[in-house]
Amino acid sequence: MTQDLFPLPQGSTIGILGGGQLGRMLSVAASRLGLRCHIFEPGANPPAGHVADAVTTAAYDDADALDAFAASVDVITYEFENIPTEALDRLEAHRVIRPGREALRVSQDRVTEKDFLTGLSLQTAPYAAVDDAESLKAALEAIGTPSILKTRRFGYDGKGQVRIMSPDQAETALAEMNGAPAILEGFVNFSAEVSVIAARGADGQVAAFDPGENVHREGILRTTTVPATLPQRLRTDAVLLAARILNALDYVGVMGVELFVTPQGLIVNEIAPRVHNSGHWTQNACTVDQFEQHIRAVAGWPLGDGTRFADVVMENLIGDDLDRVPGLARDPSCALHLYGKAEVKAGRKMGHVNRVIRG
Amino acid sequence: MTQDLFPLPQGSTIGILGGGQLGRMLSVAASRLGLRCHIFEPGANPPAGHVADAVTTAAYDDADALDAFAASVDVITYEFENIPTEALDRLEAHRVIRPGREALRVSQDRVTEKDFLTGLSLQTAPYAAVDDAESLKAALEAIGTPSILKTRRFGYDGKGQVRIMSPDQAETALAEMNGAPAILEGFVNFSAEVSVIAARGADGQVAAFDPGENVHREGILRTTTVPATLPQRLRTDAVLLAARILNALDYVGVMGVELFVTPQGLIVNEIAPRVHNSGHWTQNACTVDQFEQHIRAVAGWPLGDGTRFADVVMENLIGDDLDRVPGLARDPSCALHLYGKAEVKAGRKMGHVNRVIRG
Repeated sequence: MTQDLFPLPQGSTIGILGGGQLGRMLSVAASRLGLRCHIFEPGANPPAGHVADAVTTAAYDDADALDAFAASVDVITYEFENIPTEALDRLEAHRVIRPGREALRVSQDRVTEKDFLTGLSLQTAPYAAVDDAESLKAALEAIGTPSILKTRRFGYDGKGQVRIMSPDQAETALAEMNGAPAILEGFVNFSAEVSVIAARGADGQVAAFDPGENVHREGILRTTTVPATLPQRLRTDAVLLAARILNALDYVGVMGVELFVTPQGLIVNEIAPRVHNSGHWTQNACTVDQFEQHIRAVAGWPLGDGTRFADVVMENLIGDDLDRVPGLARDPSCALHLYGKAEVKAGRKMGHVNRVIRG
Repeated sequence: MTQDLFPLPQGSTIGILGGGQLGRMLSVAASRLGLRCHIFEPGANPPAGHVADAVTTAAYDDADALDAFAASVDVITYEFENIPTEALDRLEAHRVIRPGREALRVSQDRVTEKDFLTGLSLQTAPYAAVDDAESLKAALEAIGTPSILKTRRFGYDGKGQVRIMSPDQAETALAEMNGAPAILEGFVNFSAEVSVIAARGADGQVAAFDPGENVHREGILRTTTVPATLPQRLRTDAVLLAARILNALDYVGVMGVELFVTPQGLIVNEIAPRVHNSGHWTQNACTVDQFEQHIRAVAGWPLGDGTRFADVVMENLIGDDLDRVPGLARDPSCALHLYGKAEVKAGRKMGHVNRVIRG
């Protein structure tokens, strides 16, 4: 079946689970290749729907909607990793899902993810699964403080995380997990945080964008700067390490790999089996950006050229940052990318701006 | 009214008349600014509809559909100039149309357009209105042969045109006009054909992209190369001349101005009050491309930075050229832009490719 279907010809439809800004920019990229997108999203008025061929508004447990969606598309991808397993099972009975289930299984659970990474002999923060007060006590004895207690699943943008500065904060921290399975992670003393956006095609070809250097505030990515200040050796390490992860998962699509730079080398913070906020700079500094690269992979096309041709600082526009748009629109170095979200909320990603610096 | 409405805020909707590839790329550009597009198009399955927030499929004489369309948008623009006057009258009763009616009136008729241009003391080919055998005979005596007889209205991509090599071909040529009002144009002996894509904001600010050099075959644009091989003096002339046209029309939006390069200086071939095929190179060589520039103007935003940062050869993919896509998709210098058109036809524009050359 796969051989007949791919590469997807002109006019084919890619189903995207999730209708946020990532789905929106994926749909735009697909249009450049003559492909259409159908968005599946439970929430009303999704940003991706403004530039999609079709939108299904339904819950992930709506079997009929899932079946109809799958029947209307040629391949399925997603903009976020926390899709309910039952929905994926249902969709996969009809259509190929790319990136595949193994990547989702691994990245949906922080413990499984770290087990997978250490299994590849990659470095991670010290970690231990935490289910109750007793396992938290043992974990704190093994890992020490300061450390971070996180839910194993469904965390994003710093949500579901609490720092433990001393063992007497254990009880309060555990209460914050609301009974959800958790993971204790040791603090990593890093000099910088970088990420590699890597892609793997259906033919096994791997391509990585130049690593970017990230700055987070309150758990939310604020800026990504390329090039990252990273010694050449670590730059190569970062790309090789990402390629290893993609190959191990027989991955098809784009993945974001977040790394800590430490005196002991690169430590993998987390992986995201999708296009990634820290890859938005590629829109204004590469012929083929991360969104088109993902669509190419998912559609069974050859990967494109992601060589970087300019320096960029990507800045997220969060909440009231949107008030700065009139000024940014007048700044000749700024490429604006706004998401058309109806409501401004504190901490909500409303858009981003790529400041392009040419040599 | 205008002052309250503009600049259009996030989530506003731009109505676009025409659902072809130009509308498609305008809609994508609007999404980057957080704006939505609603496409009005008589034909089924328009390429622009794949990436638009809404599509109205209706004829230009469907008053109810026009009223509902106008009521659903904040401003109206168009991707082609041959919109029926009655439809424009109806729409304009509800909403601002940008670029304005004067630009449409002038460019919808080849004689009116040349009268307008010569009125600005700009050079055009020698021309005369032709309504019948008698006026054609007089025109041929004044202008001589070889010359070209064209319909005054509704011509595009070389359609509605016939060459007259000697006076005895007059009768046959006139028959080809099918009784439509016509214009006789003298041949211009040009060394190159260039075009300037210029924009004017609602605030009167004018910006022009670098002139591109065009090659046509069988009346259809094949390639645009930037930079054009044009002496610096003529490069400046081209931009100033375009600015003069935009200012004279109190124009808001992007305009394509086609020019012949001759020993006597620049001769205006024609103007198109819209984004233009010869401006597609801007997508991969400018931070703000012609599509975003047009949307910015129409939405009352400040114009963006259209400085060219790379050399480009834009090539149209026409008809069976689409068969070359698999090879082009593997070429690292090529940025693909496909239109998702359902049916391949000889002479039909199916996409284009920007070959980017970096210094």
